[in-house]
Amino acid sequence: MSPVAPGDVLGILGGGQLGRMIAVEAARLGLVVHVYNDAPASPAFDVAARATTADFADGEALAEFARHCAVVTYEFENVPVSAAETVARWAPLRPGLAALATAQDRLAEKRFVAGLGIPVAPFRAVDDAASLAAALAALGRPAILKTRRFGYDGKGQVVIREGDDPAAALAAIGAAPAILEGFVPFAAEVSVVAARAPDGGLAVYDLCENRHEGGILARTTVPAAAAPETEAAAREIAARIATALDYVGVFAVEMFLVRDADGEHLVVNEMAPRVHNSGHWTDIGAATSQFEQHVRAVCGWPLGPTTRRAPVATMDNLIGADAGAWRTLLAEEGARLTLYGKGEARAGRKMGHVTRLSEKR
Amino acid sequence: MSPVAPGDVLGILGGGQLGRMIAVEAARLGLVVHVYNDAPASPAFDVAARATTADFADGEALAEFARHCAVVTYEFENVPVSAAETVARWAPLRPGLAALATAQDRLAEKRFVAGLGIPVAPFRAVDDAASLAAALAALGRPAILKTRRFGYDGKGQVVIREGDDPAAALAAIGAAPAILEGFVPFAAEVSVVAARAPDGGLAVYDLCENRHEGGILARTTVPAAAAPETEAAAREIAARIATALDYVGVFAVEMFLVRDADGEHLVVNEMAPRVHNSGHWTDIGAATSQFEQHVRAVCGWPLGPTTRRAPVATMDNLIGADAGAWRTLLAEEGARLTLYGKGEARAGRKMGHVTRLSEKR
Repeated sequence: MSPVAPGDVLGILGGGQLGRMIAVEAARLGLVVHVYNDAPASPAFDVAARATTADFADGEALAEFARHCAVVTYEFENVPVSAAETVARWAPLRPGLAALATAQDRLAEKRFVAGLGIPVAPFRAVDDAASLAAALAALGRPAILKTRRFGYDGKGQVVIREGDDPAAALAAIGAAPAILEGFVPFAAEVSVVAARAPDGGLAVYDLCENRHEGGILARTTVPAAAAPETEAAAREIAARIATALDYVGVFAVEMFLVRDADGEHLVVNEMAPRVHNSGHWTDIGAATSQFEQHVRAVCGWPLGPTTRRAPVATMDNLIGADAGAWRTLLAEEGARLTLYGKGEARAGRKMGHVTRLSEKR
Repeated sequence: MSPVAPGDVLGILGGGQLGRMIAVEAARLGLVVHVYNDAPASPAFDVAARATTADFADGEALAEFARHCAVVTYEFENVPVSAAETVARWAPLRPGLAALATAQDRLAEKRFVAGLGIPVAPFRAVDDAASLAAALAALGRPAILKTRRFGYDGKGQVVIREGDDPAAALAAIGAAPAILEGFVPFAAEVSVVAARAPDGGLAVYDLCENRHEGGILARTTVPAAAAPETEAAAREIAARIATALDYVGVFAVEMFLVRDADGEHLVVNEMAPRVHNSGHWTDIGAATSQFEQHVRAVCGWPLGPTTRRAPVATMDNLIGADAGAWRTLLAEEGARLTLYGKGEARAGRKMGHVTRLSEKR
């Protein structure tokens, strides 16, 4: 691809808060941002120079969009691969199709990661009651039944415990193609957020420790309470995954941290081919935010330093009514508030986040 | 006025880089930004949810714009007072009309500041050759002839030295209504950037030292090399000016620092009723950027801390072709680049800036 320069158009597929935060950083670096999304009320539209509202199945609109972009990225992994393919015919798509296709399908993703020799939770493909019964027999209980596609924030998954009816679990996920995952008795959930440049260069942020509530990320604390060897292992896992996908841009790998008699182990849960909620702390917590870093990476520009700006950074999501505390948060010295410009504060909806730096945990 | 909340519309009169940087911070705090400017290619349009391109004399367009805003601010002081008056009939205008009218006219501004008992350069009104001759006789040479209105970045002013022809100087500024200012033998140029809240609360940033080249700000260094008493005096001057104008929002007061046998003295040069180029270092250099601070102030939200984030912060303007170094600047560890999205890098045009933090000057 030809070099990208300030003044060029960066296209973003998807219009949520991640696109919004990428768009702002891209504009700061002099790019003209064009957001393509299928919903008219999209948070990213409000900060983008150009906006297209059209279906992801609208090949003509996608081509028209991509033709005027120097490079196109995506901000959520459920962009249909067919849409991404159309775009990729007209403009460089970063990250590429392989990452998108792999991350969209939990089964493909698990097989891909396991194929790299990286530990994942034990899993089985589930297509019907019979394969679910076989999977439960193999993996035991508790186990987690997850749809292969379109899951996020705990949606499309259900835990099957002793005494639970497998048929009910299958019905709860709409009898969609699924996988069953064995339960990993984790001590903590951690994630690596990193960026890979077109030349293979990697910039990795400090290991994040994540606390979920009701399947939704509630708080990220950096650095994670983990041994230095564990952090090194996490970086190595991220590097192997990104290299295998010839990945370009920011990505995250979510992992379980397991502690047993042998020490700490990492088990990969899933990877996200995009900027990630557990990287929001970088907005004031790191020398380069993940959003700026993503723009640098997809444009082929030098990656920025990932240095942490304080001994500890925390990021709390503002979910639903949490955002009503905005005035209190604005009055709190050192709290950095970001709101996503979403109209209605529905339960479970990510409305914003707040980042804080501190001297100790 | 009724309280402003996230989701409300913030109107900005003017569409340059200052409006652009205000718009981004306003969006981050959940506001919907509507920019009104008279030029279709306006940097602020690219990051605003809504844009109106219309003349500042178009009363209907101004009213339509203001009617949907919870609060309106301006990003340059040459917005016609008549336009601001129209807006103020439909929405709260912050800062108000008094600050705008005063700052638009160098003569009114000088009289206003001097009337507060604050030292200014000696000055005389100049309307024609006769009053210029009298002013030169009173103030001596060198002296600086400045238009009363529409001057910025060294435009609309000319130095009259020994041997210079006053008639040529008058012609050089288009024979516009002017003032003659006596030359102040300054050791440094400094500025105070501060915000005043509707309740009178003041948040002042550290004293800035400014180096101009060709009448245009080239570099700001913070803190200024000045005695603590001088910094205290500068804060006091800023407070008096803002209080007298019942000012709301961020503003800057540019001053000459004079050193003589008695020590350091401050002489006010001019005030800017808006975020200011010498405050751009706050983008990474202070706990709250001047742009976020301005949004907080005009919305009636709590002001943020002005704490400096490092022993020294510098801001260098990228003028004209300077912006061509963007790739080198992106590769420089610790340099924070901001580009304004302007098309053509004309000589003398502010294209962006770069902020750096360091341990010492």
